[in-house]
Amino acid sequence: MSSEPPPAASSATGAEELSADLSAATLSKKQQKKDARKAEKAEKAAQRQQQQQQPVDAEDPFAANYGDVPVEEIQSKVISGRSWTQIGDLDDSAAGRSVLIRGAAQAFRPVSKKMAFVVLRQRMSTVQCVLVASADAGVSTQMVRFATALSKESIVDVEGVVSLPKEPLKATTQQVEIQVRKIYCINRAIPTLPINLEDAARSEADFEKAELAGEKLVRVGQDTRLNYRAIDLRTPSNQAVFRIQCQVENKFREFLLSKDFVGIHTPKLISGSSEGGAAVFKLLYNGQPACLAQSPQLYKQMAICGGFERVFEVGPVFRAENSNTHRHLCEFVGLDAEMEIKEHYFEVCDIIDGLFVSIFKHLTENCKKELETINRQYPFEPLKYLDKTLKLTYEEGIQMLKEAGTEIEPMGDLNTEAEKKLGRLVREKYVNSTALLCFTNLYFDNNFLCYL
Amino acid sequence: MSSEPPPAASSATGAEELSADLSAATLSKKQQKKDARKAEKAEKAAQRQQQQQQPVDAEDPFAANYGDVPVEEIQSKVISGRSWTQIGDLDDSAAGRSVLIRGAAQAFRPVSKKMAFVVLRQRMSTVQCVLVASADAGVSTQMVRFATALSKESIVDVEGVVSLPKEPLKATTQQVEIQVRKIYCINRAIPTLPINLEDAARSEADFEKAELAGEKLVRVGQDTRLNYRAIDLRTPSNQAVFRIQCQVENKFREFLLSKDFVGIHTPKLISGSSEGGAAVFKLLYNGQPACLAQSPQLYKQMAICGGFERVFEVGPVFRAENSNTHRHLCEFVGLDAEMEIKEHYFEVCDIIDGLFVSIFKHLTENCKKELETINRQYPFEPLKYLDKTLKLTYEEGIQMLKEAGTEIEPMGDLNTEAEKKLGRLVREKYVNSTALLCFTNLYFDNNFLCYL
Repeated sequence: MSSEPPPAASSATGAEELSADLSAATLSKKQQKKDARKAEKAEKAAQRQQQQQQPVDAEDPFAANYGDVPVEEIQSKVISGRSWTQIGDLDDSAAGRSVLIRGAAQAFRPVSKKMAFVVLRQRMSTVQCVLVASADAGVSTQMVRFATALSKESIVDVEGVVSLPKEPLKATTQQVEIQVRKIYCINRAIPTLPINLEDAARSEADFEKAELAGEKLVRVGQDTRLNYRAIDLRTPSNQAVFRIQCQVENKFREFLLSKDFVGIHTPKLISGSSEGGAAVFKLLYNGQPACLAQSPQLYKQMAICGGFERVFEVGPVFRAENSNTHRHLCEFVGLDAEMEIKEHYFEVCDIIDGLFVSIFKHLTENCKKELETINRQYPFEPLKYLDKTLKLTYEEGIQMLKEAGTEIEPMGDLNTEAEKKLGRLVREKYVNSTALLCFTNLYFDNNFLCYL
Repeated sequence: MSSEPPPAASSATGAEELSADLSAATLSKKQQKKDARKAEKAEKAAQRQQQQQQPVDAEDPFAANYGDVPVEEIQSKVISGRSWTQIGDLDDSAAGRSVLIRGAAQAFRPVSKKMAFVVLRQRMSTVQCVLVASADAGVSTQMVRFATALSKESIVDVEGVVSLPKEPLKATTQQVEIQVRKIYCINRAIPTLPINLEDAARSEADFEKAELAGEKLVRVGQDTRLNYRAIDLRTPSNQAVFRIQCQVENKFREFLLSKDFVGIHTPKLISGSSEGGAAVFKLLYNGQPACLAQSPQLYKQMAICGGFERVFEVGPVFRAENSNTHRHLCEFVGLDAEMEIKEHYFEVCDIIDGLFVSIFKHLTENCKKELETINRQYPFEPLKYLDKTLKLTYEEGIQMLKEAGTEIEPMGDLNTEAEKKLGRLVREKYVNSTALLCFTNLYFDNNFLCYL
């Protein structure tokens, strides 16, 4: 892994943890460790200083404009006050401006001794950095060599001037280049990483195109991805997926808070199974049998009974199921809501309807970049929905299925297949619409409605 | 418990669960159950209808203005379009207006055959409802009797006109009264509940005052509170505590999101202990040993290493510790943040500082009602902080302790006692200020700073 994990940010519960940790540890042991680390660091620093005193190339007048930054230099030595630009923010409007960026070196394209390209990546964005040896720019051939000899995924600082390329850039997300003036390596990655980020970010279309051209591209298998998750997380599509997840939660919370819901956190370690009982994780709590909550159901209902009227929870749910379908997971993040009903369960339908539409809208309007990023690697059809959700009664739904040749018992539940089919029928009949299927009988339970 | 738990709101993950549930269940069994339930309900409904046809009091011309609402009537029969007013929203400005409220009957004060008061509670708020028998108002003596004969904590709908009392009301939060025109019981609580809400909401001062007056008030013990948690949750202070918790999380998220953090959820079922190892919950995952995460630390760091730059998580943390101090819990909700550092760990200090101040500010400005509610039952000193947090170096902190007679090893950690003492010293010396204690040595770890 290329970047040394930065020191941990203290959490809001930090003060609590902190003192617990402190009181538990014996001071002298910690002190001994610290002293040992201090001595070790001092020795290393001395070695490094010696190395630095032997410049990379004594004849290079621009030696100060590039090089490896010793670890001591970046560990809270100075507050330079320099301003960092996010790679994703670089656009035409920045042309001519001098910027400072930090990113992972994703690709190197040496052109000649005097010229090279380095692609830096930050989050979902990449930018092309151009090195051209020139005394005016303070760039030497040694500096070009230094840049192209860096290992992939090394963390690199670049200072340079933003310029507009003559032709659109295909290999990077940002449509500007950086004319490099200074380049420093903050942390070198090991020369050969288990995953090449460019490989990990390719789409099926890329592979097909390469095959047609007689090229053979490397595929990164799922095992490799999972074994080196921290590297795989760096692909633009993974960056986008996590950001969209975060936005879904934000909008879920925002919408429900605006409807007077209270966010709660219910116990996960409980004394019995939440439901069924078969697929529950069991453990010992202080010698007594305990279970992991398969659902916050009971506690949500207690909250309603306790006078909260409307509550929601975002948190882990545990089910000891064999995770062998994409609908079964032993651990997942549940977005749960519970509300009292004043008169009619349509009140719940309205909340759910408004919730989904507001999430759809938010993603469509505010996560364009993330959706495009995922679409590049994993093409998908854009989400279609209507501002006003179609509502079907259960009978209408059953009738639509019947007309299409699927018989369901009049008051029976829909199985997965029928549910999917009904979704397709709704989409065909009502043109790109989503629908809420409402049961009209009074004997509903948890499964009383579904969003198609 | 007084209110029948309302039918569950479908969760956002509901569609997934739904189909899982559906495919697992056999349709015919469910159908059988439903049919049985249907028959049972129909029978009950018939019985009820018969009862209804015998009016409570045949001579009462206002019999339609009160009574128990049969359960069938409130189960999604009608969408009346009536508008409900929150008890907490009732103030002077509503005077003269006709309102419809729903609340739990907290107290009854019969004055005479013709007059009575009923206190209704909703969330943190209570309001006095006045019944005065009068033909003009459509209120009979039978209606007054009906109202006062309800059991405490029954769920009650009241329609009435808001009026202003001549003297300030001491027993309710709202300073208006409702002149009752109609009163219906939606759900009767059992006559004697294990907890009387008025008892459960008293402060120590209330007990002392009563004792001086020679009265003996009932104390609700912790065991009773925990055994009947859903009832105890209805006390105004519990309502307030949960609402403040929710606001802390909201502000935590809002602040960090504004600083470009991404919210993530890390695994809780993991293959080894997160730290130490002693205080970990162990269980079997598919026959293999697994642990419950004692910290999201590793996963947060993986996210940083994975290029997210700044992440946070709000979620459960599990520690198999004996929960015998208020600083040790086997399960708690952690508010965690992790960020990469560009140059100096002061970047983290600044984030934490801004985070805490923004939370303090938000609670002070936007949770006045909640804080006052808690303060009535559990008096506390108001939170004091400065907009600009004092920053002390570790040496300065140690020096302050030394001058106050507490010796700490020069580079040693602070124990709980020293930490508390330093907090008091800071408050005394810098007048109502909070402070961040920053270590100036480079060899910091998780415990590198604390908020005093």
